[in-house]
Amino acid sequence: MTKVKGLVCRECGKEYPVEPIHVCEFCFGPLEVVYDYQEIKKKLSKEKIENGPKSLWRYIDLLPVEYPSVGLNAGFTPLKKAENLGRLLGLENLYIKDDSVNHPTLSFKDRVVSVALSKAKEFGFDTVACASTGNLANSVAAHAAQAGFNCFVFIPANLESQKIFGSLVFKPTVVAVEGNYDDVNRLCSEIANELNWAFVNINIRPFYAEGSKTLAFEVVEQLGWRAPDAVVAPAASGSLITKIWKGLKELYMVGLLDSLKTRVYGAQAEGCSPIAQAWKEGRDFVKPVKPNTIAKSIAIGNPADGIYALQVTKESSGIWETATDEEIIEGIKLLAETEGIFTETAGGTTIAVLKKLAEKGYFSPKEIVVAYITGNGYKTMEVLEGHLPESIRIKPTLADFKEKILVKTL
Amino acid sequence: MTKVKGLVCRECGKEYPVEPIHVCEFCFGPLEVVYDYQEIKKKLSKEKIENGPKSLWRYIDLLPVEYPSVGLNAGFTPLKKAENLGRLLGLENLYIKDDSVNHPTLSFKDRVVSVALSKAKEFGFDTVACASTGNLANSVAAHAAQAGFNCFVFIPANLESQKIFGSLVFKPTVVAVEGNYDDVNRLCSEIANELNWAFVNINIRPFYAEGSKTLAFEVVEQLGWRAPDAVVAPAASGSLITKIWKGLKELYMVGLLDSLKTRVYGAQAEGCSPIAQAWKEGRDFVKPVKPNTIAKSIAIGNPADGIYALQVTKESSGIWETATDEEIIEGIKLLAETEGIFTETAGGTTIAVLKKLAEKGYFSPKEIVVAYITGNGYKTMEVLEGHLPESIRIKPTLADFKEKILVKTL
Repeated sequence: MTKVKGLVCRECGKEYPVEPIHVCEFCFGPLEVVYDYQEIKKKLSKEKIENGPKSLWRYIDLLPVEYPSVGLNAGFTPLKKAENLGRLLGLENLYIKDDSVNHPTLSFKDRVVSVALSKAKEFGFDTVACASTGNLANSVAAHAAQAGFNCFVFIPANLESQKIFGSLVFKPTVVAVEGNYDDVNRLCSEIANELNWAFVNINIRPFYAEGSKTLAFEVVEQLGWRAPDAVVAPAASGSLITKIWKGLKELYMVGLLDSLKTRVYGAQAEGCSPIAQAWKEGRDFVKPVKPNTIAKSIAIGNPADGIYALQVTKESSGIWETATDEEIIEGIKLLAETEGIFTETAGGTTIAVLKKLAEKGYFSPKEIVVAYITGNGYKTMEVLEGHLPESIRIKPTLADFKEKILVKTL
Repeated sequence: MTKVKGLVCRECGKEYPVEPIHVCEFCFGPLEVVYDYQEIKKKLSKEKIENGPKSLWRYIDLLPVEYPSVGLNAGFTPLKKAENLGRLLGLENLYIKDDSVNHPTLSFKDRVVSVALSKAKEFGFDTVACASTGNLANSVAAHAAQAGFNCFVFIPANLESQKIFGSLVFKPTVVAVEGNYDDVNRLCSEIANELNWAFVNINIRPFYAEGSKTLAFEVVEQLGWRAPDAVVAPAASGSLITKIWKGLKELYMVGLLDSLKTRVYGAQAEGCSPIAQAWKEGRDFVKPVKPNTIAKSIAIGNPADGIYALQVTKESSGIWETATDEEIIEGIKLLAETEGIFTETAGGTTIAVLKKLAEKGYFSPKEIVVAYITGNGYKTMEVLEGHLPESIRIKPTLADFKEKILVKTL
């Protein structure tokens, strides 16, 4: 695989071959995929990408996979010009990158899982696994089904039963672990050390995480090969933001972007904002917190890539901002009412933070600003309980309709 | 608008200009959009379509809209080769046309609503409305929000509250009518006669329904400009099947298909199968039934286009088949377990019927067969209650994992 040089430790720089490993054996730093950009640059062009498949696999030259075999329809989601929301926020060029319709399980996790499981095939694994309570579990279970892997999904035992239907329907083995999410994660790391299984966000994490770069690639292509001036993205582990930045850098390095000018803004829920707190206190390290927010899909108290996400905002001249649970609900409603897109709490966080940043003057009116919507609201409708208007009740007659509806609403 | 000649009554052939009307004033037959195919043929080519937008609007030359303004990201959903399901059913060339990821509200209704509301803009309406309990309401509310229409959604008052969150989030006025779905529909027809509102499936239905043709266009293009040998689609009003057939015919008439050979198979839930019953009893008329099935999204007891859908199966050498509620659940699970796609009850009906038809020998092994998946399972997860395996509970220790999971599952 000439495009990939190998893995390298982000901390000490030690090099490793392409193997299903994720931690440096010397300093315990995380491993990262390193590419031969000189080699890639020779072969890659806008035309080649534009003639590729209508999925994230059009960017295979910048992904650590030789033969895409899983998730062939993932990615290449719409980039929607948000005229109405933009008008409200004083932004003439606001766009929504909309992964709420990602194939097949309606979140950006379909990107990372497609890359992870294609790589798992290449490595020869027959069993894949993950710890998750939501979107990741859905996506791993769905892709494992289509690709013919054995699949194990680990969840905290106290999770509501209907929540896991969206994973169970794909027939993985669901293991309910008596403990909290941290207990589940720790157990998974132990299992990954003992068994020859591909845990997507443990032992094959370096490959898995690369899938998020396509969120940068697609936006640049969909803008007509221009980089946005600013992007706003939610942060859980911090990996997404790190990879969006890596993606932009790569396009610059292979000559598909003229400059590297995008400011990257991070959004966290106030009830779980360890990275944003570090930013606000000027720390370059992240203190773990105990999550307490409705934004479950981004509630990681001890974010693995937090310090790298912090570095991205510094390097790109962005900042971090948070949203309260109430603001998150308002963010969900604002996007729905203005742009007709129904996102989940992570997306609500992004929109709430976008609004705050716009109001505080972080964007100039003509700048190209992109907000990343990473998941779909139809999966977690219960968060809206008590936050929506009531319907108006009438008898099935024209007279009652005129009296109760026409008079009052028009 | 040179491509559109006008409207014509399907029954008596009387012609009408392009106006927001849907019923012949002489014979009360339904009106249909008529095109000038000679004119269209001169301008249309595969290349022109392929260079168009990545949405259903790439087929604007065959749609009754001049200026697409609503739903610019709807359509052009994946056509997935179903290798696993195909192997089980003895079909080497089985495909899933997957509208479960349609933008923005995850069903084929995003197609018809995009066309209807773009046309409503052209007609100058400022208010749109519909009667629906599910997918249609979601889509009308979402598209009305992005397009700046006033929006009224009419539902039966006894609908569960969380069901309507997926519409309410877009801030339409939701009118809960005391009565059943037929009462709601009747009231809407009365209102449409009195007010200058665009009811998508009443007064602008002729334009609305045309959007479904794109499900035929896209499949043909995605197969490399080949028509499938057979398609299986669910039927509620019967309009979808009628329009898939019209779409195939149109491609043939404008020279983009060499022959018209596709067999169209109709799928209904046994608990609401007025069209399939007419077929089985050899009738050319449809007797209304009282729906009693879990497949709510296709439970129309008195299907407006039933007789035309019957004609399509006759003309195309297809047949009708039904699925029980149990078979529908099995259909949902079968598609999820084999192809990693989570559909709702309408899709479960389609897969259950596909399976029956395959087992009865209606397809030969090498034929190209396409199953239409029209909606997403994440919206109605409750139907799976009691039909999925339990998770396995363990303590958060490697020892317990090995004893309870490894020994039993591998």
